[in-house]
Amino acid sequence: MPTLADSVRLADDGVHILDRRVFPARREWVHCATAEDVAKAIEDMVTQSSGPYFAALWAMVLAAREAVELPDPMAHIVGMGERIVATRPTNNGLREAVRIVLSTVDSRDPVGSALAGAHAGDEEYRSRSRALGEHAAKLLPDNARVLTHCWADLYLVGLVEAAQAAGKTFRFYCTETRPYLQGARLTAETLAEMGVETTLITDNMAAAVLASGQVDALVTAADRVTMDGHVVNKIGTLGLAVAARSFGVPFLAMVHAPDRFAPTAADVPIEHRAGAEVLTAAGVVNPAIQGHYPAFDVTPPRFVSTVVTDRGPFDPAALAGYHQEEL
Amino acid sequence: MPTLADSVRLADDGVHILDRRVFPARREWVHCATAEDVAKAIEDMVTQSSGPYFAALWAMVLAAREAVELPDPMAHIVGMGERIVATRPTNNGLREAVRIVLSTVDSRDPVGSALAGAHAGDEEYRSRSRALGEHAAKLLPDNARVLTHCWADLYLVGLVEAAQAAGKTFRFYCTETRPYLQGARLTAETLAEMGVETTLITDNMAAAVLASGQVDALVTAADRVTMDGHVVNKIGTLGLAVAARSFGVPFLAMVHAPDRFAPTAADVPIEHRAGAEVLTAAGVVNPAIQGHYPAFDVTPPRFVSTVVTDRGPFDPAALAGYHQEEL
Repeated sequence: MPTLADSVRLADDGVHILDRRVFPARREWVHCATAEDVAKAIEDMVTQSSGPYFAALWAMVLAAREAVELPDPMAHIVGMGERIVATRPTNNGLREAVRIVLSTVDSRDPVGSALAGAHAGDEEYRSRSRALGEHAAKLLPDNARVLTHCWADLYLVGLVEAAQAAGKTFRFYCTETRPYLQGARLTAETLAEMGVETTLITDNMAAAVLASGQVDALVTAADRVTMDGHVVNKIGTLGLAVAARSFGVPFLAMVHAPDRFAPTAADVPIEHRAGAEVLTAAGVVNPAIQGHYPAFDVTPPRFVSTVVTDRGPFDPAALAGYHQEEL
Repeated sequence: MPTLADSVRLADDGVHILDRRVFPARREWVHCATAEDVAKAIEDMVTQSSGPYFAALWAMVLAAREAVELPDPMAHIVGMGERIVATRPTNNGLREAVRIVLSTVDSRDPVGSALAGAHAGDEEYRSRSRALGEHAAKLLPDNARVLTHCWADLYLVGLVEAAQAAGKTFRFYCTETRPYLQGARLTAETLAEMGVETTLITDNMAAAVLASGQVDALVTAADRVTMDGHVVNKIGTLGLAVAARSFGVPFLAMVHAPDRFAPTAADVPIEHRAGAEVLTAAGVVNPAIQGHYPAFDVTPPRFVSTVVTDRGPFDPAALAGYHQEEL
């Protein structure tokens, strides 16, 4: 398993989170003794992508451990769940992780039941990512050259593992993904760990690479997909999708499921981070220069070829079909 | 005059070039004692954009100074001209600067005649940039919000000076322009020096900013514009132009003149720099990861609204009109 696929761990003394802000240059783990520490670590971007989902699962176990000492254990657990969900607004994972644990937690055995819920949530996420990866790998031919953006985490791992199991070879272009370089640090490193041929480009090279015919598919994760096919993902996805459409390259967006609680893009809050983070990343210190940092963007369905879910691929105009299977 | 508008200087001891690789964090001048030193400095990216044009002008004066000691002065001057033109292939400025000096140099007074040619070339470039800036400023309304990329150098200075002279206020979004951050370092700093409101974004945020209606025009320089309207410019311009077209934002490309020696894009060599430069800029040291570095891209005319020249604006499909004035 690549390093990042096991980068949030529960222990007796709390939760340990691999610090994705410095990986792979340094492999440091942040120790969170309390559920509140985990919430702060998520806010501080110690982990991201699927990392907050797993961190939230195990944070809920810490909350349960804390709760046994308190007069109203359930109030603490529920309160910590709200605290964790509020750390970052755009990705659904936090809400889902908290929901899973709360649905199993039992006041007669808060710790044991929370632990069972967290384990179930862990296994569910991994198995759905494997299924999604298998569906995505089937859509790409052998020797496909794939452009990806930011860090698609277990979806990407699932895609590569499925391709390797099927005897297919994919080659990847990774955007560096400014300002925090998740593509250069997390994606490129993980693909290299998995033995995949990987080429790094700056974000602004992607359109030229797409126009030149060097790429067969754009494949990214999505933090959310709305029921009408809008893909909400790391800032930069929109520009890649627009260029891919202009130059005839299909865009596959990977997500476990479209969000039935988000009919359209207006239902998804877009996190804006401090503009100072952009200035700092570029080394700009002139106080007359401002920064602007929308952390996610919204790609309209006209720029999306296929939404790949754990139940298979869907046209972005036909996502209702995903949930019809549940009826 | 902003710092970067006077950043290549002839002196008795050679040519002094402000090091744009470290500006504005450090204001260091690279001393080039010989014309060959200037050629190496251009190759090493000490200066870029219009910098190599001015560096080439003054390098030709150094070549003339060197030539007086030699048996065949003209052979040395012509040879150094070829050496300088070969340093970087995509921008026309080097060829133009060398041509201007060679057209005035006289074997009876190599230094004086080269100096006169270089001064004429310096003044011509500046006056054409002022004219171009005035034409561009007229195309933008008061309070226009302009997205720019990389560093448009004297074209940008001319645009801002013309706007200020006309009592117009423009606000700018600058892309940071990876991997060397010319937008964050050169453009943002110079706009701040000129008192212009400036907001920095990462390259991958531009599509979202364009889609959101926060920008009235995309305005960049062009290293070359072909006679059939292809805009060759810093890598990243293509992606911005495609996004601008998709979201209804006009793209103005600024260049003194379309290149009558380049009928179409196939006539312009695109410089590819070492992929290792991309890896280094991102801090990637894993030898299993490759880098890819096309330094320029080509924007087809369907994504270009207007080419702004020193003779006014032209539709990219009607650039022949520029040179018809010379008939």
